[in-house]
Amino acid sequence: MSKLQGSPASAEACPGPNPPPLSELPGLTVPDIGPVSGGDPHEAAAHAPPAGKATVTCIDYSPEQCQLEEVKDPAEFLARHRPEWSVVRWINVDGATDPVLTQALAQKYQLHPLAVEDLLHPGQRPKAEDYPADADSPGRLFVLARMLQIVGHRCRSEQIAFFLGRRTLITFQDAPGDVFDPIRQRIKTKGSRLRNSDASFLLYALIDAIVDHLFPILDNFSERLTALEESVLMWPGRSTVTPIHRLKRELVVLRRAVWPMRDLVHQLQREPHECLSDVTRTYLRDVYHYLVQLIDLVETYREIATGLTETYMSAVSNRMNEVMKTLTIISTIFVPLTFLAGVYGMNMPIPENHHAITYPLFWLFALLVAGGMLFWFRRRGWF
Amino acid sequence: MSKLQGSPASAEACPGPNPPPLSELPGLTVPDIGPVSGGDPHEAAAHAPPAGKATVTCIDYSPEQCQLEEVKDPAEFLARHRPEWSVVRWINVDGATDPVLTQALAQKYQLHPLAVEDLLHPGQRPKAEDYPADADSPGRLFVLARMLQIVGHRCRSEQIAFFLGRRTLITFQDAPGDVFDPIRQRIKTKGSRLRNSDASFLLYALIDAIVDHLFPILDNFSERLTALEESVLMWPGRSTVTPIHRLKRELVVLRRAVWPMRDLVHQLQREPHECLSDVTRTYLRDVYHYLVQLIDLVETYREIATGLTETYMSAVSNRMNEVMKTLTIISTIFVPLTFLAGVYGMNMPIPENHHAITYPLFWLFALLVAGGMLFWFRRRGWF
Amino acid sequence: MSKLQGSPASAEACPGPNPPPLSELPGLTVPDIGPVSGGDPHEAAAHAPPAGKATVTCIDYSPEQCQLEEVKDPAEFLARHRPEWSVVRWINVDGATDPVLTQALAQKYQLHPLAVEDLLHPGQRPKAEDYPADADSPGRLFVLARMLQIVGHRCRSEQIAFFLGRRTLITFQDAPGDVFDPIRQRIKTKGSRLRNSDASFLLYALIDAIVDHLFPILDNFSERLTALEESVLMWPGRSTVTPIHRLKRELVVLRRAVWPMRDLVHQLQREPHECLSDVTRTYLRDVYHYLVQLIDLVETYREIATGLTETYMSAVSNRMNEVMKTLTIISTIFVPLTFLAGVYGMNMPIPENHHAITYPLFWLFALLVAGGMLFWFRRRGWF
Amino acid sequence: MSKLQGSPASAEACPGPNPPPLSELPGLTVPDIGPVSGGDPHEAAAHAPPAGKATVTCIDYSPEQCQLEEVKDPAEFLARHRPEWSVVRWINVDGATDPVLTQALAQKYQLHPLAVEDLLHPGQRPKAEDYPADADSPGRLFVLARMLQIVGHRCRSEQIAFFLGRRTLITFQDAPGDVFDPIRQRIKTKGSRLRNSDASFLLYALIDAIVDHLFPILDNFSERLTALEESVLMWPGRSTVTPIHRLKRELVVLRRAVWPMRDLVHQLQREPHECLSDVTRTYLRDVYHYLVQLIDLVETYREIATGLTETYMSAVSNRMNEVMKTLTIISTIFVPLTFLAGVYGMNMPIPENHHAITYPLFWLFALLVAGGMLFWFRRRGWF
Amino acid sequence: MSKLQGSPASAEACPGPNPPPLSELPGLTVPDIGPVSGGDPHEAAAHAPPAGKATVTCIDYSPEQCQLEEVKDPAEFLARHRPEWSVVRWINVDGATDPVLTQALAQKYQLHPLAVEDLLHPGQRPKAEDYPADADSPGRLFVLARMLQIVGHRCRSEQIAFFLGRRTLITFQDAPGDVFDPIRQRIKTKGSRLRNSDASFLLYALIDAIVDHLFPILDNFSERLTALEESVLMWPGRSTVTPIHRLKRELVVLRRAVWPMRDLVHQLQREPHECLSDVTRTYLRDVYHYLVQLIDLVETYREIATGLTETYMSAVSNRMNEVMKTLTIISTIFVPLTFLAGVYGMNMPIPENHHAITYPLFWLFALLVAGGMLFWFRRRGWF
Repeated sequence: MSKLQGSPASAEACPGPNPPPLSELPGLTVPDIGPVSGGDPHEAAAHAPPAGKATVTCIDYSPEQCQLEEVKDPAEFLARHRPEWSVVRWINVDGATDPVLTQALAQKYQLHPLAVEDLLHPGQRPKAEDYPADADSPGRLFVLARMLQIVGHRCRSEQIAFFLGRRTLITFQDAPGDVFDPIRQRIKTKGSRLRNSDASFLLYALIDAIVDHLFPILDNFSERLTALEESVLMWPGRSTVTPIHRLKRELVVLRRAVWPMRDLVHQLQREPHECLSDVTRTYLRDVYHYLVQLIDLVETYREIATGLTETYMSAVSNRMNEVMKTLTIISTIFVPLTFLAGVYGMNMPIPENHHAITYPLFWLFALLVAGGMLFWFRRRGWF
Repeated sequence: MSKLQGSPASAEACPGPNPPPLSELPGLTVPDIGPVSGGDPHEAAAHAPPAGKATVTCIDYSPEQCQLEEVKDPAEFLARHRPEWSVVRWINVDGATDPVLTQALAQKYQLHPLAVEDLLHPGQRPKAEDYPADADSPGRLFVLARMLQIVGHRCRSEQIAFFLGRRTLITFQDAPGDVFDPIRQRIKTKGSRLRNSDASFLLYALIDAIVDHLFPILDNFSERLTALEESVLMWPGRSTVTPIHRLKRELVVLRRAVWPMRDLVHQLQREPHECLSDVTRTYLRDVYHYLVQLIDLVETYREIATGLTETYMSAVSNRMNEVMKTLTIISTIFVPLTFLAGVYGMNMPIPENHHAITYPLFWLFALLVAGGMLFWFRRRGWF
Repeated sequence: MSKLQGSPASAEACPGPNPPPLSELPGLTVPDIGPVSGGDPHEAAAHAPPAGKATVTCIDYSPEQCQLEEVKDPAEFLARHRPEWSVVRWINVDGATDPVLTQALAQKYQLHPLAVEDLLHPGQRPKAEDYPADADSPGRLFVLARMLQIVGHRCRSEQIAFFLGRRTLITFQDAPGDVFDPIRQRIKTKGSRLRNSDASFLLYALIDAIVDHLFPILDNFSERLTALEESVLMWPGRSTVTPIHRLKRELVVLRRAVWPMRDLVHQLQREPHECLSDVTRTYLRDVYHYLVQLIDLVETYREIATGLTETYMSAVSNRMNEVMKTLTIISTIFVPLTFLAGVYGMNMPIPENHHAITYPLFWLFALLVAGGMLFWFRRRGWF
Repeated sequence: MSKLQGSPASAEACPGPNPPPLSELPGLTVPDIGPVSGGDPHEAAAHAPPAGKATVTCIDYSPEQCQLEEVKDPAEFLARHRPEWSVVRWINVDGATDPVLTQALAQKYQLHPLAVEDLLHPGQRPKAEDYPADADSPGRLFVLARMLQIVGHRCRSEQIAFFLGRRTLITFQDAPGDVFDPIRQRIKTKGSRLRNSDASFLLYALIDAIVDHLFPILDNFSERLTALEESVLMWPGRSTVTPIHRLKRELVVLRRAVWPMRDLVHQLQREPHECLSDVTRTYLRDVYHYLVQLIDLVETYREIATGLTETYMSAVSNRMNEVMKTLTIISTIFVPLTFLAGVYGMNMPIPENHHAITYPLFWLFALLVAGGMLFWFRRRGWF
Repeated sequence: MSKLQGSPASAEACPGPNPPPLSELPGLTVPDIGPVSGGDPHEAAAHAPPAGKATVTCIDYSPEQCQLEEVKDPAEFLARHRPEWSVVRWINVDGATDPVLTQALAQKYQLHPLAVEDLLHPGQRPKAEDYPADADSPGRLFVLARMLQIVGHRCRSEQIAFFLGRRTLITFQDAPGDVFDPIRQRIKTKGSRLRNSDASFLLYALIDAIVDHLFPILDNFSERLTALEESVLMWPGRSTVTPIHRLKRELVVLRRAVWPMRDLVHQLQREPHECLSDVTRTYLRDVYHYLVQLIDLVETYREIATGLTETYMSAVSNRMNEVMKTLTIISTIFVPLTFLAGVYGMNMPIPENHHAITYPLFWLFALLVAGGMLFWFRRRGWF
C-alpha cells in the first residue's frame, strides 16, 4: 500500500521552444505509480492524495446538433440521461485525481477498477488496455497517454486517460489546459468529418492533436543540436560539456516518452476492437506513421548527439596536442640554452670567459641550436 | 553432485534507501545453483546444506471465514485435513532449506522433484514452470521469484518460491521477514477483493507486493544519479570515479534481477493455466505493465549513467586542457626571458653590459616579448 | 492545425558527387509534416502552402501505340476519356502542392483523402499504403518515396508520390526535373519490355530508376572515407575533426532515408495486391536486393567511420605521448644541470669556485648525468 | 580436402580455478574443422590424422542389473550381441579420432557419414542434429558438445560427441578423463532414477554434468573481476591493463562456447524426437535454465568488464589531471620568480642592485607573487 | 542505365595468408551493380562491358561413365544434344561477362533475364533466387556466390553464379582459375559419392569447396590479431595504430562478405525446391554449420579487435601518465631550487652571501627540499 505518491496535479517540466533557455525534461525521478493496484477501489480511494477541485465538461453532438455543457453539479449530471439526438458524448474531466467524482463516473460508466486505479495516479507509462464486455459491464477501451505541450517558455507534461465506449468518450486530465481547442472548434463546425463520425474518431482526433504537439519540441532539439555542433567544431570548451550532457539526457527521457506512444497507437491500429471503427483504424495508421517518423528523428538526434561527444573529445584532444607542442617547442629550445648561459654565469675560473670572442660565439651557437631544433620539429610536422 | 553451495539462509545485500550510504547489490559472485538437478529427491536431500529451523504458517480463508495457524508440529499439521469451509489455503514456509520439512510438504502436495530441487538452493534465476497434471499428480504451477526489500539502511535479497494448485498456495522463503504484511491484513479484512477471490489471486497479490517494493530501490538510484550528475558537471575529480563505477555496476546487477521477473509475469499473463483464473491474469497484466515501466527506468538510468561517464571524461579532458594552457602560457613567456637574463648574467666580456641603457632596454624587450606572446595566445583563443 | 510548414517546392540539399566540395545532407531540421491529417480535404486544402504552377504530363501507351501529351488545360483534360487503345496511362504532375489541381485529380481518380494530405506536404517518410477497393472507390496503392539526385555539384532531395490503379499510374513530384528520362525513352521504344507490360511494371521501373541514382551518392561517401582515412593515418590534426564529424552525421541522415525505402519495397514485393502483377513483384525482388546492398554499404561505411574516430583518437593520443616524451627528456636532463650551474653562479663564498679543476669536473659531471638519463630513458623505451 | 588439421587428441587450455595464475582460454586460433565433409567416409578416414590408441568402455544396465566391460578387442565386442536384460547400453570411446574403430562402430550402429566426419575432427561448434530413420538406418540423434573441466590449475576443453538411439548411447571423447564419474556411480547405485530410466535420460545426465562443470570456471572470472575492480579503483597503473584485456578476451571466447550449448539444449528440449522421452525433455528444460543463467552471468561479467575499462580510463585521466596540476602550480609560481632572480643576476649596471633594501623587497615581492598564485589556483579549485 | 561499371574480369584483392605482408580486402569502393535490371536482355547486352574471351568446359557423368569436354565451338556445342547416359551435366564458363555466349546459353537453358543481368556484372551481393517453372520455362535455382581464394600472397575475390536445373548445373565465373580442382578429381573417381549423386549434390560440393577456402583467410586474421595484441601490450606506439585500424576495417568488409553467404545457404537448406534433393539439403545443413562457425569467428575477432583499441588507448594513457609523472617529479624538485640558486646569484647586496656557512646550509636546504618532495610523491604513489 506504499508506492510513491507524487503531487496529483503536478505539471512536470519539459524543454521549451527556445533553444537557449531550457527547462529540463522530467524523468529521472521515479514516477508516481499509485497504490497496490489490486486493492479494492474504495480502499484505494481512501488512500488517494487530496484532490483539487475537478471541473467536468460534456459535449454531445450529432451531425445535426451540438451542445456543450459545463457541469456544475456532477451528481445531478450523472443522474440525467443524455439527449436522444446525441450520437457521441465526450465527457472531459480536468483534475483526474478527485477520487469522489472519478468513482462516481466509474460507477455510472462501469469502468474497470484497475483502470480507475491507473488514472488516479499520474506518471504512468502510456498504454492501451482492452476490457472486453462481460455479463456485468460493456466493453471499454482504456488508453493512457502523455500530453506534452509548450506553455510560455516551459513544457508541460500531463497524463491523460481515455475511456472509449461505443457512443461515449471520457477523458481525464490532471490539470486544466490542453491541446484540444482545435478539436472542440471542429466539433462545433457543422459538416466537418469529425462531427459526422463516431466516438472512436474523436479518440483518433485527440491522439492526433497530442502527437502534433510533439513536433515543436523536436524542433527545439534540432535547433539546440545545430548550435552545439557549431560551438563544438568552432571552439570546444568548458561551456559545451554541460549542454551536450543535458541534451543527451533529455533525449533519453523524450525517447522513453515517445516509444510507448508508438506501441500504443500500433496496438490500436492493429487489433480490432468493438469500439473502434474501421475508418478510425485507417486514420490511426496515419498517426502511427507520424510517430514512427518522430522516433526516427529522436533516434537520429541521439546518434548525432553521441557523435557530438566523440567529436568534442577529438577536438579537445587535438587542441591539447597543439598546446603541448607549443610548450615543448619553446622548452626544448630554451631550456638547454638557459643551462649553457647558467654555466657561463658560474663564478668559477672558466677559461672561455676571458675571451671577447666567446660572447658572439655563444650567440652563434644558441642560434644554431634553436634553428636546428626548429628544423627538426618542422620535419616531424609539429608546426 | 558438486555445484556451488551458498549458506542457505543468506540474506544478500542490495542498495539501501539513502543515496550516500550504500551497501552494494550482490551479483558478482556466482550464485548458488544446487546439486545435480536430476538426482533423486532423497539423494539431493541428503546432500542439502544443514537447515535452520523452519517455521510454517497456514492461513485458510473463504469469503466468510479466515483462520491463521502458526504450525508447531508440521507432521501433525500435514496429517490433518483442511477445514471444509476453506476456499484458499496459503502455507508459508520460512526457511525453505529445511530438507525434511520440504520433503514432507512435497510428498503431501505432490510437488515435482525438479521444483523441489530448485527451492532447496537459493540464488536461482526467477522463472515460472508449469508441471501439468498427469496420472500421478495434479497440475501445479511453480514460480521462482526474487524479493528485494529495504531493511534498515540495507537491502535484502531473498529467493521466494510459489507452488500454486487449484485451492492451495505454498510459498517457501529463505528466511523470516517478508513484504507480505499488507496482504495478510487484506486477507483478514472481510469483504476485500482478495478475500473473495481464489488462490491464484493470492499469488497475484503477493507478486504485486514484491514488485511494489522495487520502486523505492529505483528511487535510491535516481537520487544518486542526480547527485553524481551535479558533482560531475560542477567539480569532476577523483571522488566521482568510484561512485559512478559502483552505480553502473549495480544497475547491471539490478537489471539482471528485474528482466527475468518481467519474463515470468509475461509468461503467467499470456499462457492459460488450469490454476490461473482469468481475473487473475487480467490483474497480472497490470503487474506486467509495472515491470515494463521498471525496466524502462533501469534502462534509462543505465543510459544516463553511460552518458555520465562520457561527460566525466569530457570534463576531465577539458579541465586538463585548461591546466595545460596555463602552464604553457607561463612557460612560453618566461622561459625565453629567463634565458636572456641568464645570458646577461654570464661572466664573460659582454659589450652590452657596459652601458646603463641596457637595463631599461632589457625590460622593454621583456615586456614586448610577454605582450606579444599574450596577444598571440589570445588570438588563438587560449584565454 | 499547426504542424511545421516547409516551403512546398524546396529542393533539399544532399552530398554532391565530388568528395571535397560537399553540400550537406538535410535532415536535422524537423521535416515538414502537413496539417492535421484527419481534417477534411477541403479544409486542409485551404491551409496548404501557396502553390507554384503545376505542370501535368500524360503518357498513354500500349504495345502498339504511344502518345505523350503536355496538358495545358487540366480541367479539359480531366473531362476527356482516355483513348480506347491505351493500356497504361501515366499522369505525371510536377508541383504536387497545387491544391486545386491535386483535388481535381483526387476527385476524378478517387484518391483517399489521407493520401492526398500526405502528398500535399513534402518531407514525409517513405511508405507504401494500400487503400483497398470498397463500395465507393476502386483499390489504389499509394507509395511515397524520396528521390535523391545529383544536380550540378549539389544533391537534390525530392518527395515523390505514386498512385497505382489497375491501368493508371499517377505520380506527383514537388518540382520539375526528375530521373525518369531513360524510362520515358524506353516507353517510346516499341518492343521494349516496359511497353509490353502493365501499369505496375511502370511503377517498378520508376522505383528502380530512383534506387539507381543512390549509388553515385554512396560512391561519394566512399571516396571521402578513403581520403579521410589516409589523412588520419598520415597526419591527424585539427583539419580532420570537422570532416569526420560531417561524414558520420550525413551517414546517419542517409541511412534514415534508405531504410524506409527498403521497407517500402519489401512490403510491395511480399504482399500481394490487386494492382501489382506477379511479374512486377519478381522484378521488385531485384530492386529489394539492390536496396539491401545499399544499406549494407551504408552500415559498412558507418562502421568504418566509427573506427576512424577511434583511430583518430588513438593517433592523437599517441602523438601527444611522443610530444610529452620529447619535452620530458629535454627537461629532465637540463633542469637539474641548470640548477647546478645556478648554484655555482651564486655570489656567496663557494670553495669549489677557487679551483680551476672545478670547471672541467662540472662538464664531466654534466655529461655523466645527461648520459645516464639518456641511458635510462632508452631502457624504458622512450626513444 | 585441405581444411586445417589440429592434433587429434589436443586438450586445449582454459582458465584455471585460481584467479591469479591463469592459463588462457583457447579460441583465437582457427579451430579444427575436418576434411571436406561431403566426401565418402572411407576417403575421409584415409586423410584423418594418425590416431592414438582408443579405449572403449561399455556399460549395460537395467533396473535390476548393471555390468561394466572394458573392451579389449573391439572387433569381437562388435560382433557380440548385447545381453537380453540390458535396457540401456552406453558405449564410451576415449580417442574419437581413431578412424578404424570409429568406422567399425559407425557401420554397426548405422551412424550417418556426416556425423562421423564431425566427430573425427575436434574444434567444432556445439550442435544437435537429427538424422531421422529411413529405409536404411534407424533414427539417430547426434549431439556435439564441448566439455570444459579444470584439471590441476589449468582448464581442459574437449569435444564430446553423443549418438543417441532408442536403447543405446554412444559417446566419443578426444582423450581419456572426463566429468562423468558421478554418473557412473549413480548407474551402479540400484534404485537411482538414472538406473530406472531410458537411454535419453542418460544423455540428459551427461549434459547436466558438463554444464555443472562450467560454474567453477565462471567463479574464477568473478573472483578475478572483483580483484581487478579493486586495483583499478585503488591504484590504476600499468599492471592492470593486461589482465583487464585478457579477462575481456577470455569472456568473448567463453561466451562463444556457452551460447551454442544453450541453443543445443533449447533445441533438444523443444523439438520432439523419437529417441527423447518426455521425462528427459522436462529435465532438459532444467539444464536449459542453468545455461540461461550461465549466459546471464557471462553477459553481466562482460558488461562489468567493459565498465572497468571505462573506469580505468577515467581514473588514469583523473590522475594525470592531478599530476599536471601539481606541475603547473609549481612551475607557474617559480618560473616567473626565477626569471626575476635571473634579471638581478645580470652583470649589467642595474640601479636597484646598489641598495640594500632591494633584497628584502625582492623576497617580499616573491612571496606576494607566490601567495597570489596560490590564492588564484585555490579559487579555481586546483587543490 | 547508368550504374557503376567495374572492369568485368577484375580479380579484387583480399588479405593474403602471411600475417605481415597484407594486401587489403576490397570493399570500400562501391561495387559494380550492373545496368538497369529490368531492361530487356538484349538491350542490357548492348551496354555490357567489353568481354574477354570466355572458355567453356562441360563435364557429363553418370555412376558408370564420365566425360570432360573443352568446348572449342560454343555454337556447335549448344546445338548438340547431351549423351543419353549422362545423369549430370556441369557446364562451367570462365568469363561470365561475354554477353554473346551468355545469351546463347541463357536461350538454350531458358535462364531468367533478371538472373542473366546479375551474372553479367560482377560485385553483387551473394543471394539465392528461385525462378519457379511456368509454361515457358522449367524451374531454375539461381545462386550467386563469392569465391575468395589465396593466390600467391594475395587474395582474389571472384563472383560465381550457379544455375541449377534438374539434371544440369551451369556455373559462370569471372575469370579462369578456381577452387574446384578437388571436385573435378572426385567426379573422375568412380564410386565416389559425388559421382553417384545428382546435380544438386554437385552444387553442394562446389559451395562446400568455396566455404572451405574461407578458413585460411580467417587464420590469417587470427595470426595478425595475436601479433598486434602482443605489440599493444608490450610496446604500444605509433606503429600499431595503422595495422589495428586496417584489421578492423578488413573484418568489417569480410563480415559483409560472409553474412550473405550464410543467409544463402540457410535459404537453400530450409526451403524445398524441385531441383534440390533431400540428401543435398542434409549436406547443406553441414555447410551451414561451417558458415555459422565462420561468422562466430569473425564476430569474435571483431570484438577482440575492438577490445584491442580500448586496450591501446588505456596503455597509451597509462604510459603518458608515467611520462608526466617523471617530468613533474624532476621539475617540482629542481625548479624551486633553481629559483633559490638564482636568488643568491643576484648582484645585489645580500647579507647571507657574506658568510661561508651559507653554502653548506644551502645544500642542506636543497637536499631537505628534494627529500621532502620525494617523500611526498612516494606517499601519493607516484613512483
